[in-house]
Amino acid sequence: MKISARNLLKGKVVSVEKGATTAHVKIEIAPGQVVTASITNESVDSLKLAVGAEAYAVVKASDVMVAVD
Amino acid sequence: MKISARNLLKGKVVSVEKGATTAHVKIEIAPGQVVTASITNESVDSLKLAVGAEAYAVVKASDVMVAVD
Amino acid sequence: MKISARNLLKGKVVSVEKGATTAHVKIEIAPGQVVTASITNESVDSLKLAVGAEAYAVVKASDVMVAVD
Amino acid sequence: MKISARNLLKGKVVSVEKGATTAHVKIEIAPGQVVTASITNESVDSLKLAVGAEAYAVVKASDVMVAVD
Amino acid sequence: MKISARNLLKGKVVSVEKGATTAHVKIEIAPGQVVTASITNESVDSLKLAVGAEAYAVVKASDVMVAVD
Amino acid sequence: MKISARNLLKGKVVSVEKGATTAHVKIEIAPGQVVTASITNESVDSLKLAVGAEAYAVVKASDVMVAVD
Repeated sequence: MKISARNLLKGKVVSVEKGATTAHVKIEIAPGQVVTASITNESVDSLKLAVGAEAYAVVKASDVMVAVD
Repeated sequence: MKISARNLLKGKVVSVEKGATTAHVKIEIAPGQVVTASITNESVDSLKLAVGAEAYAVVKASDVMVAVD
Repeated sequence: MKISARNLLKGKVVSVEKGATTAHVKIEIAPGQVVTASITNESVDSLKLAVGAEAYAVVKASDVMVAVD
Repeated sequence: MKISARNLLKGKVVSVEKGATTAHVKIEIAPGQVVTASITNESVDSLKLAVGAEAYAVVKASDVMVAVD
Repeated sequence: MKISARNLLKGKVVSVEKGATTAHVKIEIAPGQVVTASITNESVDSLKLAVGAEAYAVVKASDVMVAVD
Repeated sequence: MKISARNLLKGKVVSVEKGATTAHVKIEIAPGQVVTASITNESVDSLKLAVGAEAYAVVKASDVMVAVD
């Protein structure tokens, strides 16, 4: 499957924390650079996400903001 | 200003393309890893975004999906 | 690739309208039921989207609201 | 009330699962085609959402991605 | 229609700027406090949005971030 | 830090409710006008959000919809 989302950042899952319905998954996409995803518990199970797994953080371009110091 | 968005990826602006109302800004956050942001032309002007500028790609955790091969 | 987004609605592309930077793609997911996606022109090219193509409308669960009459 | 969101998919609520603060509501919009919405528990109460109720899944066009096989 | 989105900010349209596909609509929700919405041109037409019209800025809670100075 | 998000609504935190992973923060941006943000518990801690604190509700323009009566 190929998706229109412009941003696919490859990395490794470093943490999976399930809540009541919502989970937080952290993916290290470069040394020391970690992206946090808030997804459903259901997705964690469906994708069998676990620490150490290779995964992509996927973000639609319209969900990216820009900031400057 | 400190923001709740969990993901601030520091990089350098490598492209700014303005459309009629919406601009696409590309930020290189690691060698070869480019993030595309779709923001208003107004924001590009307000932040004086231009190629070569240091900038952050900012993403709320609830806007990050996870994919596996 | 398998994605965490909970909603993949299969259908057929019925319209592609490119703007200056942003395109609108309409996918018929059931007879008479059309979903509109606002994506980058770049994605339209990258996925070679054209009228008649099979495609999925993909939506993260946290981007779905509920309404009642 | 009339809303700018381009996508209103009518269906029937088939599941409501409340978490600590966030609920998952599933709406069947066509036979076998179910859309999952992640909304606040507060909204579930305010809209009195329950299994069997008629409801719409509402999605802004800029939150719809497109995928192809 | 009643929607799950937690944030409905009533105001008056103070500007409508159509682009090629995407429009920017500004709504004054309190004296001097203006909210900008990026929506499809199609929605502007469908809702007959024009300067002076009463309108609501509608935002899902999961799309609101918090910042502190 | 200066951010591209077009909407920064200044106010006072009137409620913080933490869930298992996701918190709901309410900010009063004008007398009687309250905005609800759904953010990570982690952000609440990181920003030290508490009732009475001054804070901004921040929303990207592409996440704002428009509705009319």
